[in-house]
Amino acid sequence: MTTESGYFTESTSAQVVAARNAKAQDARLQQVMEVITRKLHEAVKEIEPTEEEWFRAIMFLTDTGHMCTDWRQEFILLSDVLGVSMLVDAINNRKPSGASESTVLGPFHVADAPELPMGSDICLDRKGDPMLVHGRILDTEGHPIAGAKIDVWQANDEGFYDVQQKGLQPDFNLRGVFRTGPDGRYHFRGVKPRFYPIPDDGPVGKLLAALGRHPFRPAHLHFIIEAEGHARLVTHIFDPDDPYIHSDAVFGVKESLMADFRPVSDPDALAAAGFSGPYYDTEFDFVLVRA
Amino acid sequence: MTTESGYFTESTSAQVVAARNAKAQDARLQQVMEVITRKLHEAVKEIEPTEEEWFRAIMFLTDTGHMCTDWRQEFILLSDVLGVSMLVDAINNRKPSGASESTVLGPFHVADAPELPMGSDICLDRKGDPMLVHGRILDTEGHPIAGAKIDVWQANDEGFYDVQQKGLQPDFNLRGVFRTGPDGRYHFRGVKPRFYPIPDDGPVGKLLAALGRHPFRPAHLHFIIEAEGHARLVTHIFDPDDPYIHSDAVFGVKESLMADFRPVSDPDALAAAGFSGPYYDTEFDFVLVRA
Repeated sequence: MTTESGYFTESTSAQVVAARNAKAQDARLQQVMEVITRKLHEAVKEIEPTEEEWFRAIMFLTDTGHMCTDWRQEFILLSDVLGVSMLVDAINNRKPSGASESTVLGPFHVADAPELPMGSDICLDRKGDPMLVHGRILDTEGHPIAGAKIDVWQANDEGFYDVQQKGLQPDFNLRGVFRTGPDGRYHFRGVKPRFYPIPDDGPVGKLLAALGRHPFRPAHLHFIIEAEGHARLVTHIFDPDDPYIHSDAVFGVKESLMADFRPVSDPDALAAAGFSGPYYDTEFDFVLVRA
Repeated sequence: MTTESGYFTESTSAQVVAARNAKAQDARLQQVMEVITRKLHEAVKEIEPTEEEWFRAIMFLTDTGHMCTDWRQEFILLSDVLGVSMLVDAINNRKPSGASESTVLGPFHVADAPELPMGSDICLDRKGDPMLVHGRILDTEGHPIAGAKIDVWQANDEGFYDVQQKGLQPDFNLRGVFRTGPDGRYHFRGVKPRFYPIPDDGPVGKLLAALGRHPFRPAHLHFIIEAEGHARLVTHIFDPDDPYIHSDAVFGVKESLMADFRPVSDPDALAAAGFSGPYYDTEFDFVLVRA
C-alpha cells in the first residue's frame, strides 16, 4: 500500500515499488532501479515461482556471494555465462563497419606487465607449440598507427594464466606490452593457445552442469590496444579450429576475431623466421576507431 | 556464436544464450533460465549500463552475499524491499473474495513456540501497553472452525523479536500457539505493537538510503492459521494509525488486514475484561479457504 500509487497487487506491484523511490538521491539510480524492478516483476509473473523455488533462487545468490573472494569473482562468472558481460561489452563498444570488434576483458589481465622489445618471446615456461603472432595496427582509413601500445596475455599450454598458478609459472609468463614504430607493425612469440574451462567448482559451474553446458572457452589470445587519439580496444583473437569455437561458455566469440593459426614446418621458412623447429604463424591486423 | 542460433549480437543475445541451455536436465529449470535471461537482457538493453555501472552492480551483489550468515539473510531483505517477496506471496496465495488475505512470513517465525491455554498472556517482558486480541476462525460460509491452530508472534515494545535479543528477552517472549474450541473463537493477551526497522546496516540499508526510503515496517502481529481441510494462512494484522502504514518497507500491508486497536479505559470495561489498567482491544476474524 502506498499513498502515491494505491495498493500493492499482482497487477500494480512494479509501479508501487518504483513510486516508493521518488526521493532517490540520484536520477540515474532511480531510473536503473525502476527498470530492474519492472523487469524482475515481469520475470516473476511469467515464471510464477513456488515459494520453494523462490527460496532456491535466494540460496543460489547467497552461495554465489559466499564463493566470491579477492581472487574469485563468482558474480562476474554468472554475468559471463548468462551473456550479460558480452551484452554490456557490445553496448559500450559499438564500432563502425571495418573497425576491429571488442570482446570481454576477462578476469586475468594485470596492469603491470613488462614493456618488451618488439619480437620478444613471452612464453617463459617453454611449454607447448611455439607461435609467431604479427600484424599491423591501423586506423579506419588503412593507415598504420605509430606508437600504439599492445598489451597481450594468454593462458599457458596447460590452460592456466600465470596469476592462477603463482609460484608454478614464471612471473609474467605469457604477458607483454609492445609499442609500434612508424610502420604500425607488431610481432612477438608466444605459444599456440588451448581451450580451458572457466572456474567450475562453484555455484555457477553447478548451474552450467544442470543446464547441460560445458565450461570451456575456445583457444584465444587477449589484447588491449591503445593509441593516442583512438578508442581503446579490448579484444581477443580466436582459433577457428578449436572444438569449442561455436560454444564459448561466455559468448565471447565473434566471426571477425577469427585468426588463422597456420602450421609452418618448411626448413627454409623456419630458418627465415629464426625458429629451430615447427611453429604456428598467426597474422592479424587490428583497426582502431578515432576517439 | 553458436551453431543453433547464429551469432551473439545486441539483438540476438537472449536467444543465443537460451539456445545454449537446450540440454538442461530439467524442463522447469530450462524455462526459468530462459525467462531470467530474456528479462535480464531486456533490462540491460533498456539501462545501457556503463562498464563501471555494471561493475558496481556486481559489487552490490557480492557485498549482499557477504552479508548473509546463518542469522542474517540479506538477499531475502533485497527481495523484500524490491517487492519480490510480496509478489511471490500474492502469486502463491490467490484467495477467493471474502477469504482472509496472506502477507509475508518474515524471518522471525520459530517452529517450536509453546502451545498455551486460550486467554494466556504472551507478553513475558511486561513492557509496553497491554492488548487483548480476540476473534473467530471461520470458513468462507461463515461457520466457526473448531480445532484451528493459531500461531502468533510479535515484536516487543522496543521493536525487537525475542530471537533478535536472545538473553535480553525471556525465551518465547510474545509467541504462542492456541487452538480453537467448537465456537471457533480465540483470545490472548499481548502488547500493542510498534513500528520497527528492517536490518539496515548492510548493502540493502544503504540502497534504501540512496533511494530516499526509510527502513520501517508499520506495527503488526504475525499469524499462521492452520485447520484440517483448509489452506494454511500466513498473514499479519496491522495498526491503521501507524505513521508508516502507507509505506511499509517490504510492501506487506493490505487494506483487508487493518485491525482496530481500540483503547479501553472505562473502569467497568477494565473490570469485565480482567485488566487492572488501560489496555487496547483488538478484534479480528480470520476466514480460511477450503483446501
